[in-house]
Amino acid sequence: MHQKDIVEKDQVQIDHLGIAVKSLTAAKAIYEKLGLSVSPEQIVEHELVRLVMVPVGESRLELLEATSENSAIAKFIAKRGEGLHHICLRVSDLVAAVERLKKDGVRLVSEDIKIGAGGHRYVFVHPSSAGGVLLELVEG
Amino acid sequence: MHQKDIVEKDQVQIDHLGIAVKSLTAAKAIYEKLGLSVSPEQIVEHELVRLVMVPVGESRLELLEATSENSAIAKFIAKRGEGLHHICLRVSDLVAAVERLKKDGVRLVSEDIKIGAGGHRYVFVHPSSAGGVLLELVEG
Repeated sequence: MHQKDIVEKDQVQIDHLGIAVKSLTAAKAIYEKLGLSVSPEQIVEHELVRLVMVPVGESRLELLEATSENSAIAKFIAKRGEGLHHICLRVSDLVAAVERLKKDGVRLVSEDIKIGAGGHRYVFVHPSSAGGVLLELVEG
Repeated sequence: MHQKDIVEKDQVQIDHLGIAVKSLTAAKAIYEKLGLSVSPEQIVEHELVRLVMVPVGESRLELLEATSENSAIAKFIAKRGEGLHHICLRVSDLVAAVERLKKDGVRLVSEDIKIGAGGHRYVFVHPSSAGGVLLELVEG
């Protein structure tokens, strides 16, 4: 452990898991069968997706359906099929986390912190720096 | 919501996320840089994998490296590359969950409940019944 750890262990949580699906209607059925609640559909226009959230404990599953063939989700499904798309971790100080990762040579998908539909700030770590996983970091 | 829901919403948690990697050493670096702890390596012989666990909040990341080319993890990486392999949800009554899912026509990878290395009971729901996601259920 480093003295300057940017996050406290007990502050990091899995905010959500992004799952790329062809059909929200079909995909959410399994979770409803397990007795879980599914949120109403939302559209995130700048990401070209519609989604539902499935709360699970302190975390959530995010089922993502593309609204355009130009969506990253459509491209992912065309290349790899439906399935797990990204892991989102919640950290307490996103600016500090990003500075530390850049200093360590970690590759980000975009250098800039972006603002999501709900006003939250986020970045994506490139899969090449995270064992093949697209890793989203949000602050909260 | 059904009257006979087999799980209470607040009892379901994400137990862990399985991530298929070529090298545990390389894959765990990003999580150490985020200040997270990584467990010592364990080997699960009957699954032909070695793994480390990374606790994150109430959940864990499970980094999985194949110990044989016959391992499901090796086959996954050969077909799809490194990345997210499965989601494991913890339910309170696995027998009841499996009975309910079978009744609803959900396809399981194996009909039998298996016993893991730590003595826990588990089944896998086939990705064709879960929006492309390999979904593990454990009891706890």
